[in-house]
Amino acid sequence: MLSEKINLQEKYSKFSKHWSPRIIAEMNDYQFKLAKIQGEFVWHDHKDTDETFIVIQGEMTIKFRDSQIKLSEGEMYVVPKGVEHKPCADNECKILVVEPRGVVNTGDAGGELTINEDMWI
Amino acid sequence: MLSEKINLQEKYSKFSKHWSPRIIAEMNDYQFKLAKIQGEFVWHDHKDTDETFIVIQGEMTIKFRDSQIKLSEGEMYVVPKGVEHKPCADNECKILVVEPRGVVNTGDAGGELTINEDMWI
Repeated sequence: MLSEKINLQEKYSKFSKHWSPRIIAEMNDYQFKLAKIQGEFVWHDHKDTDETFIVIQGEMTIKFRDSQIKLSEGEMYVVPKGVEHKPCADNECKILVVEPRGVVNTGDAGGELTINEDMWI
Repeated sequence: MLSEKINLQEKYSKFSKHWSPRIIAEMNDYQFKLAKIQGEFVWHDHKDTDETFIVIQGEMTIKFRDSQIKLSEGEMYVVPKGVEHKPCADNECKILVVEPRGVVNTGDAGGELTINEDMWI
């Protein structure tokens, strides 16, 4: 039995909370997650994995300790493992994140933005 | 040294050949590949891995032996490992494919559309 196709905008319509990634698909042991982001996230890194950001709508900035990268719709970036980063967005931005199953959004940084549960939509 | 951001349309402007995926990024041992497709590909499967298709522009159909799925811009599908499929597009369609490094586009089917080299853009 094959699964249904996934429409990103239809999935985005199902949630509104910022910094709260929702899983939409799995490929082997990797997950595709949608997020709506606005404001500043926390500094963190992922010790064991790269992490991919694709901007679906809007603009975001990924801050690094000594530089930053601004991403617009149709642009992507792979943050290398172990590199501290801080995602930010002045206005709401819709992103697609690709990373291995089990990655915690705040790395080891913890805090109130930490999501420890798999939330599928 | 961090890499540059990746703009999908700018990368698409660098090639025109159909069914000739170009690597734009790696995340751990996975690759992001852009392809322009038109017409019918060959029936094939990937024995050891799922394969993700994301439509960036246009429309494509993924045919399965007993069904088919039509994908439009902003839609995605993960073809499970071992499932025979045949990507098709009536008109040129731009897609983003995500799969492990080393996956051959035609699986074991072979033929003139087989790409055995890594082509980065």
